[in-house]
Amino acid sequence: MTAPASPDLPAAGLPDRRPATLDDLAIELPSWAFGNSGTRFRVWPSPGTPRTVQEKLADAAQVHRYTGLAPTVALHIPWDAVEDYAGLRRHADDLGVGLGTVNSNTFQAETFKFGSLASRDAAVRRVAVDHHLECLAIMAETGSRDLKIWLADGTNYPGQDDIRARQDALAESLAELYAQVGDDQRLVLEYKFFEPAFYHTDVPDWGTAYAQVTALGERAVVCLDTGHHAPGTNIEFIVAQLLRLGRLGSFDFNSRFYADDDLIVGAADPFQLFRILVEVVRGGGLGPGSDVALMLDQCHNVEDKVPGQIRSVLNVQEMTARALLLDREALAAAQAANDVLGAHGVFMDAFYTDVRPALAAWREERGLPADPMAAFLASGYLARIAEDRVGGTQAGWGA
Amino acid sequence: MTAPASPDLPAAGLPDRRPATLDDLAIELPSWAFGNSGTRFRVWPSPGTPRTVQEKLADAAQVHRYTGLAPTVALHIPWDAVEDYAGLRRHADDLGVGLGTVNSNTFQAETFKFGSLASRDAAVRRVAVDHHLECLAIMAETGSRDLKIWLADGTNYPGQDDIRARQDALAESLAELYAQVGDDQRLVLEYKFFEPAFYHTDVPDWGTAYAQVTALGERAVVCLDTGHHAPGTNIEFIVAQLLRLGRLGSFDFNSRFYADDDLIVGAADPFQLFRILVEVVRGGGLGPGSDVALMLDQCHNVEDKVPGQIRSVLNVQEMTARALLLDREALAAAQAANDVLGAHGVFMDAFYTDVRPALAAWREERGLPADPMAAFLASGYLARIAEDRVGGTQAGWGA
Amino acid sequence: MTAPASPDLPAAGLPDRRPATLDDLAIELPSWAFGNSGTRFRVWPSPGTPRTVQEKLADAAQVHRYTGLAPTVALHIPWDAVEDYAGLRRHADDLGVGLGTVNSNTFQAETFKFGSLASRDAAVRRVAVDHHLECLAIMAETGSRDLKIWLADGTNYPGQDDIRARQDALAESLAELYAQVGDDQRLVLEYKFFEPAFYHTDVPDWGTAYAQVTALGERAVVCLDTGHHAPGTNIEFIVAQLLRLGRLGSFDFNSRFYADDDLIVGAADPFQLFRILVEVVRGGGLGPGSDVALMLDQCHNVEDKVPGQIRSVLNVQEMTARALLLDREALAAAQAANDVLGAHGVFMDAFYTDVRPALAAWREERGLPADPMAAFLASGYLARIAEDRVGGTQAGWGA
Amino acid sequence: MTAPASPDLPAAGLPDRRPATLDDLAIELPSWAFGNSGTRFRVWPSPGTPRTVQEKLADAAQVHRYTGLAPTVALHIPWDAVEDYAGLRRHADDLGVGLGTVNSNTFQAETFKFGSLASRDAAVRRVAVDHHLECLAIMAETGSRDLKIWLADGTNYPGQDDIRARQDALAESLAELYAQVGDDQRLVLEYKFFEPAFYHTDVPDWGTAYAQVTALGERAVVCLDTGHHAPGTNIEFIVAQLLRLGRLGSFDFNSRFYADDDLIVGAADPFQLFRILVEVVRGGGLGPGSDVALMLDQCHNVEDKVPGQIRSVLNVQEMTARALLLDREALAAAQAANDVLGAHGVFMDAFYTDVRPALAAWREERGLPADPMAAFLASGYLARIAEDRVGGTQAGWGA
Repeated sequence: MTAPASPDLPAAGLPDRRPATLDDLAIELPSWAFGNSGTRFRVWPSPGTPRTVQEKLADAAQVHRYTGLAPTVALHIPWDAVEDYAGLRRHADDLGVGLGTVNSNTFQAETFKFGSLASRDAAVRRVAVDHHLECLAIMAETGSRDLKIWLADGTNYPGQDDIRARQDALAESLAELYAQVGDDQRLVLEYKFFEPAFYHTDVPDWGTAYAQVTALGERAVVCLDTGHHAPGTNIEFIVAQLLRLGRLGSFDFNSRFYADDDLIVGAADPFQLFRILVEVVRGGGLGPGSDVALMLDQCHNVEDKVPGQIRSVLNVQEMTARALLLDREALAAAQAANDVLGAHGVFMDAFYTDVRPALAAWREERGLPADPMAAFLASGYLARIAEDRVGGTQAGWGA
Repeated sequence: MTAPASPDLPAAGLPDRRPATLDDLAIELPSWAFGNSGTRFRVWPSPGTPRTVQEKLADAAQVHRYTGLAPTVALHIPWDAVEDYAGLRRHADDLGVGLGTVNSNTFQAETFKFGSLASRDAAVRRVAVDHHLECLAIMAETGSRDLKIWLADGTNYPGQDDIRARQDALAESLAELYAQVGDDQRLVLEYKFFEPAFYHTDVPDWGTAYAQVTALGERAVVCLDTGHHAPGTNIEFIVAQLLRLGRLGSFDFNSRFYADDDLIVGAADPFQLFRILVEVVRGGGLGPGSDVALMLDQCHNVEDKVPGQIRSVLNVQEMTARALLLDREALAAAQAANDVLGAHGVFMDAFYTDVRPALAAWREERGLPADPMAAFLASGYLARIAEDRVGGTQAGWGA
Repeated sequence: MTAPASPDLPAAGLPDRRPATLDDLAIELPSWAFGNSGTRFRVWPSPGTPRTVQEKLADAAQVHRYTGLAPTVALHIPWDAVEDYAGLRRHADDLGVGLGTVNSNTFQAETFKFGSLASRDAAVRRVAVDHHLECLAIMAETGSRDLKIWLADGTNYPGQDDIRARQDALAESLAELYAQVGDDQRLVLEYKFFEPAFYHTDVPDWGTAYAQVTALGERAVVCLDTGHHAPGTNIEFIVAQLLRLGRLGSFDFNSRFYADDDLIVGAADPFQLFRILVEVVRGGGLGPGSDVALMLDQCHNVEDKVPGQIRSVLNVQEMTARALLLDREALAAAQAANDVLGAHGVFMDAFYTDVRPALAAWREERGLPADPMAAFLASGYLARIAEDRVGGTQAGWGA
Repeated sequence: MTAPASPDLPAAGLPDRRPATLDDLAIELPSWAFGNSGTRFRVWPSPGTPRTVQEKLADAAQVHRYTGLAPTVALHIPWDAVEDYAGLRRHADDLGVGLGTVNSNTFQAETFKFGSLASRDAAVRRVAVDHHLECLAIMAETGSRDLKIWLADGTNYPGQDDIRARQDALAESLAELYAQVGDDQRLVLEYKFFEPAFYHTDVPDWGTAYAQVTALGERAVVCLDTGHHAPGTNIEFIVAQLLRLGRLGSFDFNSRFYADDDLIVGAADPFQLFRILVEVVRGGGLGPGSDVALMLDQCHNVEDKVPGQIRSVLNVQEMTARALLLDREALAAAQAANDVLGAHGVFMDAFYTDVRPALAAWREERGLPADPMAAFLASGYLARIAEDRVGGTQAGWGA
């Protein structure tokens, strides 16, 4: 029951591919994680918070610089809207990062108070579809592949609207939109259990997202946000299922104890993150041939943002290392023998292995600091931005 | 905001059909509800509990006699296995009821300790498929349309087995089985959140059941058991969605406060039952053209069984009456105006209407007792079976 | 199993008191329900939203005028802070309402980012205690009896702070504060499962609130907010228990499907509201001798506020009427006989009785409109305030 | 952020005591874990399952022999009832283990169908109290300190019984019983969220257990079963609170994903187990001066029982080692600075440390096998009991 010595050890992926390794890991950062966020009770600002998308990119570039794990940054429109996207793309290149997924916003305009793509009002749907078409146009300039759609659509009171008719309206909106998705673009539909709608949500579960995207076509896939499930949901099962069905488009990583808490990924239930990543590796979601995008979607309500993002990508890396360590042959043998405790033991061995020393070595081999967090904190960056970024309006959700 | 006076008032179903009415309502009873059931802590027997399937049918016939609502009885194989199914069918006819859905059992044979249709062991799957083929054969004799499959398959510990491979195994088993389903038969796949498996369940949610049955063909549909969801799940949304997708095969009605409590339908959250039935009516799941089967699946752990079933079918009837009362025109108008409180008010008006007097009248018009529960309790049937059914082994789950 | 004809029928309260009746019902309105509220995603403003506490009181007075149910209004400091509280009290009197509970606020000042009364920083606790002493001083002027304390205190990450030490700090703060609570004042401690803290909350459950207030003295009691529990919690049990222990100080009524959704009371699970009110009546929480304060605490995110509050107090009244209708003698007899279905039937009979006609009559006898909602909507008040209240800053949470 | 090298490192307990160390750890085994158990769907027997309490003790002694962690065994009456308890005590001594907590059973006798200590029927309460008095008498012979009371009492349907009156009845029963608890004995009251009762449970939460035991006296304390909470409950908070209040009597360790799954402790959420043990150490619940009893309460439905128990005690030991490793000085410093990520980092460092090599060394120093599981499996014990224990009736819950 001893575990292999190196986290780089190849693991059994799908048969005809090079096995995934740690070098395949790339985690996309959300631009909005560098802005202020909070709860309905309070948003706490912090010194040095970016005022512009350019400053968000600069912060994100720090995460990549110290970890080598975060080569791209997701944008949120209109929060990150600029006049010159080609210029923004060059700016990102200069910082050493790329522009990634474009996220639409249908939860803040007055028009969308009662719904957007799922509204039964054709005029509202028109505005919502047009917003997404604008996002597709932006993607053409930024070179982004994925249009990610998370909808706040839903109702607060039974009877407030017709659940079934809204589902049809949503299908219609998505079809119109999908017709404009380019050959090298994807429509990624995210589901969420609840919030901000408190009675019904129009895309509440993976089943709904799956049914909607299969009605569209092959370039429509599902985004799994790890905080968007009912209590007790076995998330790794959904990961395995969506990979099996060929519809897992991306992850929004974060963690939660209660609802959509948006805490740092791996902070609430590290073992769950391990199980999820085991299924990602198992199902071919990492490495050659995979087009699953791994992203963060978190709020740093009370902790510093740049270190919060560094901690997050390191957590994903550490757990991926453990998942890659899993002795799949021993596991398969124990499973075949119905040796419940034996199989579980092999599984836990990988989880309990302390991969931090091996990862420090891995980093040093690649010219990265052995301890990215310590190196970043010692760099003085936080003090510098606190001093430099004076005046203006700190970025936030604008809620 | 006044509600219509009669529960028979037509409600808006699908446009090209006669609207559903109360007379369309038929609820199938589970034979096992008349046997003993309980928890892992204790199964409490009660006097008069049936020893044979014939006695179960006799009890079920009482429910129909006093309510006019329960014309058929679902069987569970092997609990209700007999040598002569044609004879059993005639026996049921004589009692005034028909034989309905056949339920398979893959959770008690030693062979199935680690899974049945989803087992990765081909020999185990062979036994499991054969059991279902036997059920199909029985259905031919009983005249049953539906083969209902609820699987206990799953694991208790992370790593115990390969989630993804089991899903593939399940698909393979179902495909082999589906090939034998007759033109006038249906395969109905039930999902369940958890129990008896405590880590992963192979068909845990509607999305999985939907993905599996769509891979089979048109005569494969989903069974929604109202107690088989994660806490907080909006069940009426799933009802609406499955009806929209054309895959809602049947209901297993019951109610719960916590897990799969299997209490009397409507006892825990009557308003939820109302919302579910509103979507059933709205989506064409009742009345002409509908092939959705409404069944009970409950345990009467501490209450009398025959009255427990009477209470259950009356609860479904009362809530269906309220759902039919819903003033859909007023609702649509308020919804179109985004009048949240107005629309919710129309919805609640139907729920808060006391339909019991109108239902008493409806019964008397049809030669049924105005108060079925009182009439049954006055009949002396419970005392009679307690006296008659002495000796033998009371039916139960045989766990 | 027939239910009594009138909702005014006396119900069995505690033996030596006049039984509670509908006339005993008085529901306190929260001033903040008339301001804007929302989620972290968006706060939707609405025309006519009050800019001042005086305008909030005017709106609240409308609720009382049309229902006769809401004679007092709770204040929130500093949201409702004014220079002249005696003047505010007179203003309220002129409007026909009184000033009620004073609610403190420890979740918005920068000082309280990491805690307030439960902070381990003595300087922070000093500020927090002083804020509450200021509230006590205000109460002396407004004539309020209750100081309600809901704490946002908690942490987001395991290890962030010392759970045990914070509990001791909280006890110390409360003791210092309680020493200043007047003989005719009460300290009311509210608990909440989670939010805005996402790992641990310092007063997360009734047990903690109970342990803290019993350490203080007799004038320290617990506030039960119906939306502040873990999924599946049996709230009426807690009501019964706190009444039994003599520590139920007040309710914050609202309803929820998921978390602290703050929907209209009775909108999500009317039967739960019924069960709660049955225990209130049963335990002497209504009527002569009771000092339990019934308050609303809700957010009208998408619906109109004044009608939202009217709907809420009517819901509480309708359910109280049903609770008073419960045939407690028949219930007791069935319970004594272990007649599970009989007892449950008596219970449901009260719930299913349509009390609306009787309540309309009750209102007319008291010179109130039979249909308060219709009368209010016809009054033109909403249009008037939308026209009059132009300019200024609409009241909200200021988050 | 480096963690100390040895798991034996002293940790900050309460100031005036020797700090707890790994040598203080002793975990009591439940005799019933060696018998068959399962769900309402099926109980799977296994070869070699004990037929008698003597055989259960023999199995338990194996766990202690290989781990050095499990010196005592809890009994369950009447499952483990014998004629000669002094003889049983000697038998245990001969096997190298002691007899521990005595658990009563009020969930299987026909008398207790509707309740036991909380029944409103005085005759039923009489039987229930007498059963507990019998347990106290047994404890005098076995030398046990603790009488553990878990009650299945509750109801399945709203209205079935009077929640408040049952609470009073329970208080009365406990008072009568407590009067007979010896000076060196304790009454330990366990709470449970739900099951087997599905509407209300008479001791559903720690608040109720706490209120009931404080009404009794100092030798009445609370048992915390880690599987007996609502979804999302912060269990370590309750641990800290009960320790603070001086009422944490014992633990029933197990783990769960959904309900009271009774899986192996640490198998479902290892990080939660870590957090719990951090609070145990922090609050003085381990080591000198502590009288908190650490017990297992689990079901090995599909895995081998003796290895299941070995795995369990090792899991508790490994997590205790991590909890002892926590650098409390660094943690306190980071907490005092409101350094959220720093404090969380110190906390996680202890959790992520692989303590297995150090524990292997610790065992070898004490003459125990470095790998207890491998040593036990190699011993041939399982094959031996499978061969020897033929005939008779395997022990189980007798449900």
